[in-house]
Amino acid sequence: MTDPRLASLNAALPALRLLTDPADLQHYGRDWTRRWAPAPLAIALPSSVDEVQAVVRWANAQGVAIVPSGGRTGLSGGAVAAKGELVISLERMHKVLAFDAVDRTLTVQAGIALQTAQDAARDHGLQYPVDFASRGSCSIGGTIATNAGGIRVVRYGNTREWVAGLKVVTGSGELVELGRALVKNSSGYDLRHLMIASEGTLGIIVEATLKLTDPPPPSNVMLLALPSFDALMQVFAAFRARLQLQAFEFLTDVALKHVLAHGAQPPFAETHPYYVVTEFASDAANESEALAAFEQCMEQGLVSDGVISASDTQAAQLWRLREGITESLAKYVPYKNDVSVRISAMPAFLQATQALLGKQYPQFEVVWFGHIGDGNLHINILKPDAMSQADFVADCERVTKLLAKVLEAHGGSISAEHGIGLVKKPYLGCTRSAAEIALMRGIKAVLDPNGILNPGKVFD
Amino acid sequence: MTDPRLASLNAALPALRLLTDPADLQHYGRDWTRRWAPAPLAIALPSSVDEVQAVVRWANAQGVAIVPSGGRTGLSGGAVAAKGELVISLERMHKVLAFDAVDRTLTVQAGIALQTAQDAARDHGLQYPVDFASRGSCSIGGTIATNAGGIRVVRYGNTREWVAGLKVVTGSGELVELGRALVKNSSGYDLRHLMIASEGTLGIIVEATLKLTDPPPPSNVMLLALPSFDALMQVFAAFRARLQLQAFEFLTDVALKHVLAHGAQPPFAETHPYYVVTEFASDAANESEALAAFEQCMEQGLVSDGVISASDTQAAQLWRLREGITESLAKYVPYKNDVSVRISAMPAFLQATQALLGKQYPQFEVVWFGHIGDGNLHINILKPDAMSQADFVADCERVTKLLAKVLEAHGGSISAEHGIGLVKKPYLGCTRSAAEIALMRGIKAVLDPNGILNPGKVFD
Repeated sequence: MTDPRLASLNAALPALRLLTDPADLQHYGRDWTRRWAPAPLAIALPSSVDEVQAVVRWANAQGVAIVPSGGRTGLSGGAVAAKGELVISLERMHKVLAFDAVDRTLTVQAGIALQTAQDAARDHGLQYPVDFASRGSCSIGGTIATNAGGIRVVRYGNTREWVAGLKVVTGSGELVELGRALVKNSSGYDLRHLMIASEGTLGIIVEATLKLTDPPPPSNVMLLALPSFDALMQVFAAFRARLQLQAFEFLTDVALKHVLAHGAQPPFAETHPYYVVTEFASDAANESEALAAFEQCMEQGLVSDGVISASDTQAAQLWRLREGITESLAKYVPYKNDVSVRISAMPAFLQATQALLGKQYPQFEVVWFGHIGDGNLHINILKPDAMSQADFVADCERVTKLLAKVLEAHGGSISAEHGIGLVKKPYLGCTRSAAEIALMRGIKAVLDPNGILNPGKVFD
Repeated sequence: MTDPRLASLNAALPALRLLTDPADLQHYGRDWTRRWAPAPLAIALPSSVDEVQAVVRWANAQGVAIVPSGGRTGLSGGAVAAKGELVISLERMHKVLAFDAVDRTLTVQAGIALQTAQDAARDHGLQYPVDFASRGSCSIGGTIATNAGGIRVVRYGNTREWVAGLKVVTGSGELVELGRALVKNSSGYDLRHLMIASEGTLGIIVEATLKLTDPPPPSNVMLLALPSFDALMQVFAAFRARLQLQAFEFLTDVALKHVLAHGAQPPFAETHPYYVVTEFASDAANESEALAAFEQCMEQGLVSDGVISASDTQAAQLWRLREGITESLAKYVPYKNDVSVRISAMPAFLQATQALLGKQYPQFEVVWFGHIGDGNLHINILKPDAMSQADFVADCERVTKLLAKVLEAHGGSISAEHGIGLVKKPYLGCTRSAAEIALMRGIKAVLDPNGILNPGKVFD
């Protein structure tokens, strides 16, 4: 702790836990992108809201930049500290603070893992329905800061829909309590929604009151094999017209190949170009509607094969085919695009994008999967072993510029659910106009007048 | 049009329709509050987004304040023009622009009436579920600017949940397109949510893309008679535990008295202190659950009597008992409080408030009704005939200051669904902290740098 700034922080807050070991700087300085070399000044691990405020006030006085840090499972570099920033990790603030059965809310410290919050809701006979594969590692604060989506959005919406209240420390160190868990509150600007998806650039989320809902009904999982992407949108329409879907996820043959190579069970004797994993409540009416939709799609040649789960074990096996993709690709350090368009724009966007990537990536393996019911596609480009990471990223960024133009033409977004962070920053202008970005800059200056919160993320 | 500013506007925009007749100034200068004497400079009736932008640019150049105007059915003075402002009414911009069956969205100009949008959704086999009594007069732009609530919030949420995209002209005359109807979009700050409930102080909403959903199922309406307010919360819990409620509204004996005097049919032979109107899907399972909840509440002495609709006509008659209240009170020019607390805080808040109002308003008739499922109470104080409006309002404002303190103690809001406008502005500090109000001021300065949009509304 020879840096005079850290000596000053230590003097100001002797009880604050600070980490400066190189291994800790590595660990806390990066997220799942693995693209930037971590280089934080130090890691602060506050144990209370007061300590968070005190650190922010100190940072303002000293002109030290702060990177708010959750579970660092992000995929856009939003929690990367590569420029001597002080990382504030809320991992010691991981308590469930309150449950209210009448309001159906769970109040938690922001450092709690998503899964811990889900479990706490379940213990009270309710559910917190936001869900995705990194549930065990990501923090609630991080999910709110990125408005995380996941596999249940088609049924339950994004994180934004489930935040009843927030406590936030602003860039000037003030604590504000936003939303207050009121169902109805039309009293001025909704700063809670402004914080959601602000990626730590407007404030540090220290506490959240989450909305809970009825537990999900017992459900069936169905895996469908499809001959074409055009069929995919028609199958979605046929199923959505007949029953309320809990999930409607798709993957390509290439994605399935990787999951199978990683140990999953092959679902069909033959292979097919596209697959859908869909889930719905398993009552008799729903099952008969799902089978009717399936038969209708088979007759129209939209579906080539299908299987429905007969047990929870089988349901889990089918889900693994979709949820296991990211893990099965991790060894390739893939370059990730996470894009969205309106559902109605999907066919045209897909056609243009398939053509673009087929032409631009002849040498790379491209893995497609995503949330069809939300208009959200994940495109993972796999790095060939022989290629350097830098050359690979450079080539992918060249193509992402072209993809951003396609997105712009189809009214889409360069980031559906990962956030902008560092990774998508160069392409923000394809989704948000210059006027909007100027307004965002102005708003940041109001909430973080000295620009100390996550500088360089989202926009410059 | 002798005012030189109007001559300048006319010169700049010769095709713009401008009204300056005294009757028009009266009509467009006030909302349903009827508390301020209308005194607008003139009324501009643009017919296109371009014209709205041009008027805003002109207003910036001339330093003329603008009051954006929807259907002027507001109850908080948000659309009052009493200080020489230019009213911009969007009543000529009332077209349905697009419907998309795949996205399930309806794109409309902001001047369209809520009911017209509801009808358009119904014509396409879907519903726009925001609903309340002024549906025929209020504009979609106004409902968004106040985040309107209404009678279906317990099932469908507030207006905020149903806005997929907005086109807004900011205070500097720029057109920004927010949200773009994407289900998933994590690309920087959500300015769409910032606009919702900003009451025309940050921008003029010119176009909205509304989310639609499945039409409501055929439903049953049940009217319950209750012996006490404590029973009310228990009855709500008993019904909510057994079935999904479409609505759960309450009114007092005094409210019922006024609706009956206004021509409605008495529902029971005897009178009771409290009543609930609740609605739920009319399938066999729901009906049996509702009857079971009713019997359970009867056995526990929580409910004294009840009736269930046997036809649509009867359902409409029961709804009229709740929906007819505001109209039946209009002749008294009531002073309105529209407050909310967390549902769990309702019993304690109610007890404190009943005690406060009983003590402070011995001479006035007080009418309670509201949306129990949302924690939202409407308190209408009726002006005695012999009292002047000014004396009456002054006394009510004295008591509202005390009510604001009770709200603050119970973590409530001074405006659940009406907005702040002019009426609630003195009490904003009971719901939002000084730090929050300072942030709001800062944000307004970013979006409306010259302070020309609805100045003096929400905060000074």
